Amino acid sequence: MPAPPAARHTPATALAGGTQGARALRPLIDTTLRALARGATARGGPLPAGGPDAVAARIRAAVTPALPEHGTGPDEALHTLVQALAEGAADPADPHCAAHLHSPPLAVATAADLAAGALNPSLDSWDQAPSATTLETLVTHALARLAYPHRPTPDALVTTGGTESNQLALLLARETAHRADDEEAHPARRPAPLRIICGANAHHSIHRSAWLLGLPAPHVLPTPTGTLDPHDLHTALTGTPQPPPTLVVATAGTTDTGQIDPLPHIADLCDTHGARLHIDAAYGGPLLFSDTLKTHLTGLERAHTITLDLHKLGWQPIAAGLLAVPDTTALHPLAHQADYLNAPDDTEAGLPDLLHRSLRTTRRPDILKIAVTLRALGRRGIADLVERVCATAHHLADLIDAHPAFELHSRPTISTVLFRPDGADHHTTARTRRHLLHNGHAVLGRATTPQGLWLKATLLNPHTRPDDLQHLLKLVEGHTTR
Amino acid sequence: MPAPPAARHTPATALAGGTQGARALRPLIDTTLRALARGATARGGPLPAGGPDAVAARIRAAVTPALPEHGTGPDEALHTLVQALAEGAADPADPHCAAHLHSPPLAVATAADLAAGALNPSLDSWDQAPSATTLETLVTHALARLAYPHRPTPDALVTTGGTESNQLALLLARETAHRADDEEAHPARRPAPLRIICGANAHHSIHRSAWLLGLPAPHVLPTPTGTLDPHDLHTALTGTPQPPPTLVVATAGTTDTGQIDPLPHIADLCDTHGARLHIDAAYGGPLLFSDTLKTHLTGLERAHTITLDLHKLGWQPIAAGLLAVPDTTALHPLAHQADYLNAPDDTEAGLPDLLHRSLRTTRRPDILKIAVTLRALGRRGIADLVERVCATAHHLADLIDAHPAFELHSRPTISTVLFRPDGADHHTTARTRRHLLHNGHAVLGRATTPQGLWLKATLLNPHTRPDDLQHLLKLVEGHTTR
Repeated sequence: MPAPPAARHTPATALAGGTQGARALRPLIDTTLRALARGATARGGPLPAGGPDAVAARIRAAVTPALPEHGTGPDEALHTLVQALAEGAADPADPHCAAHLHSPPLAVATAADLAAGALNPSLDSWDQAPSATTLETLVTHALARLAYPHRPTPDALVTTGGTESNQLALLLARETAHRADDEEAHPARRPAPLRIICGANAHHSIHRSAWLLGLPAPHVLPTPTGTLDPHDLHTALTGTPQPPPTLVVATAGTTDTGQIDPLPHIADLCDTHGARLHIDAAYGGPLLFSDTLKTHLTGLERAHTITLDLHKLGWQPIAAGLLAVPDTTALHPLAHQADYLNAPDDTEAGLPDLLHRSLRTTRRPDILKIAVTLRALGRRGIADLVERVCATAHHLADLIDAHPAFELHSRPTISTVLFRPDGADHHTTARTRRHLLHNGHAVLGRATTPQGLWLKATLLNPHTRPDDLQHLLKLVEGHTTR
Repeated sequence: MPAPPAARHTPATALAGGTQGARALRPLIDTTLRALARGATARGGPLPAGGPDAVAARIRAAVTPALPEHGTGPDEALHTLVQALAEGAADPADPHCAAHLHSPPLAVATAADLAAGALNPSLDSWDQAPSATTLETLVTHALARLAYPHRPTPDALVTTGGTESNQLALLLARETAHRADDEEAHPARRPAPLRIICGANAHHSIHRSAWLLGLPAPHVLPTPTGTLDPHDLHTALTGTPQPPPTLVVATAGTTDTGQIDPLPHIADLCDTHGARLHIDAAYGGPLLFSDTLKTHLTGLERAHTITLDLHKLGWQPIAAGLLAVPDTTALHPLAHQADYLNAPDDTEAGLPDLLHRSLRTTRRPDILKIAVTLRALGRRGIADLVERVCATAHHLADLIDAHPAFELHSRPTISTVLFRPDGADHHTTARTRRHLLHNGHAVLGRATTPQGLWLKATLLNPHTRPDDLQHLLKLVEGHTTR
């Protein structure tokens, strides 16, 4: 067979890596940045106007056919699709896009993430990621020490977000329960006897993870005040004469209100009753960066596992999740061997083994953008951003409190503010939110409490100014439709 | 409380989104590209020399402290960490980095992915990703039609890779088995009676997924020839008088040899015995782009679920996994509701609901880079790259076959070539691979067959030339240590 010709080095087939990669990337990135700027200008607000059907029609016109027979070239493709995506985005960098735990990423983190894409290291074996292996080890240890400052060897896994962190926390609890049940011989052969207790304020991923893992549905304690009541937890923990292995899930920064469960009291109860404790601090965890705000998280370090998430209060592009544990040995249930990745003789010869640090196999080094952000801003630089958004939330609460047309649900704990048009019922509140979305004026979330439905502003943009907040309230007032 | 000051717009705290994001990104990306180029030049080969300890020491020196008290600024942080990562990378864009299904990404895909990071859409609700919602829908349908050309409404989920796709395939099988078992009332309350049958050639993630999902360990059929033997499968399917619901897992492109199981024969047996069929085509799937090569995948469209992965033969930065199904309704077991994301009255008012398209909640639009690549290259442009790497693998096999110092395992099916120094035993082969790694000269993989241990070259670089292959063989010859 004759030698095949290598692919021609056209802009369409150029690679991002190697010594020529940066040169190939430069003009394509220039096109991308111009398309991003044009798209943002064309959008002219936090999200596109017209609602789902209008947005879908515009994207469909730009994208079809999604798989053409012949290519249009990289410049046309980037120009068309990036501009369409930007024009139709709900952009968290706009101060009026404040619905969800949906962070506007820092430019420095976004630029760093480009390098992860260009080099494409995969953390499932050393020979796909020599430097990324060490980088992940060092940075996860530093972050784990934030969560567990008094432990000698805390550790943290990198995940796709709070949901995967919660999944892994439940999995570790399931496997530990198996061992406690003296089933070492058949650890994966039948469902764990694990009982999960959480509040109604826990994230939906706790329930979905239990389902995924083949575990019984969590026992849910009502949380009318927004946080777990230790008295109810005590009752639940003492109600069974021979209680099964139990995992208690507490939350530090609930999705609906940003409230923090009474962690020290819950940790005491878990100690007393020999229950395992997981704390979902996907939202609240980064208060740890701040000397003044970290006191809200007292008790956190008593958890067996902690969910953290730097694509929320950490200004990272998605994904930047973490699961912290007090000691590396807690990760043993994830040990895994595959001959092509970590053969015993390679391990013996000194090749590090990373396969146990995720349930994924191929895995992008999301740690790079985190590492660059930590170094660029330092602990104090990140603390400053965290403190700013919390202060901004308090200011919004002040404005709402002083405004005759609005009702404030409560003072914010972190940076979430619930409010609604004064006297609005469920339908008025829900419709007001949808009108704001439909007209492209503001992206606010929603949350239900015992007092009914509320508009939710989750403030994550450190550049939001007081006049942005005043304007936001004017927009809500103008869109209130009773 | 006085109004809080907004964060100053310094380069460190600038955001990637909004109308000013592109302007903030430009100088930071310039720093990133220069650091990538410098790192690649300093490395001067496919991976850094010195082995794990030396690489770790260099990274540790550059990174420590991982979380400084005060920041060094974005320029210093990007410069230092990106250069260190590049200098210590195993770069798949180097023709001598050919161990794993570890693809050198296209510059156009990498540039597109930057836009996903800057805008940070999250696909768990429409109001975090209006345009990305439509984009994902259109592009996944187009890719699903490649796999299921004769179905009216095929669909595909976007995943983090083949491992998550396999997990989801087993989960869908588990839930379908539950329903077959008439347990609608308690679908998640006890383990499924699902039996999984796969070959010894199946990916390790099949076993790990069964463990994760609380399912019995798969029944493994030996595959001494590298592929599932239909006779063995027939025996396994007929061995039980009242067989439980069964999932057969076949592979189109095994990790070790790139072989393809006899799909039509396996599909026939599944039909006959009422078994469900999953085909893991993470590696081989993109043969579908090629008119000449897609015949290898005859029978693929008879699977209930198909794993595809465009960060292998698709030149995407990680992650770019897919799970294709013949009809959208097959995804119903993943339906999920969370009031803050898809409240019933919002759904009724026309807000699309995407939460059921992943087990993740927050989710980056990995579809953007895929969409841009499909449009830029077209089906034929991608087919050309697929055909080139397959031809390159055949040429390497020719060179090995003609070389007196080497033994060829077999002709390649896709782009994987197994070979070894003539007469080398396990230790010689394993040591030769590690010497190449330690000296920074080449990254080759390893695979074990009934004939012992082999070096594995997985050819995924479309720019690899015949003289690169000749040089690779010279390097292996020079490093053979008996």
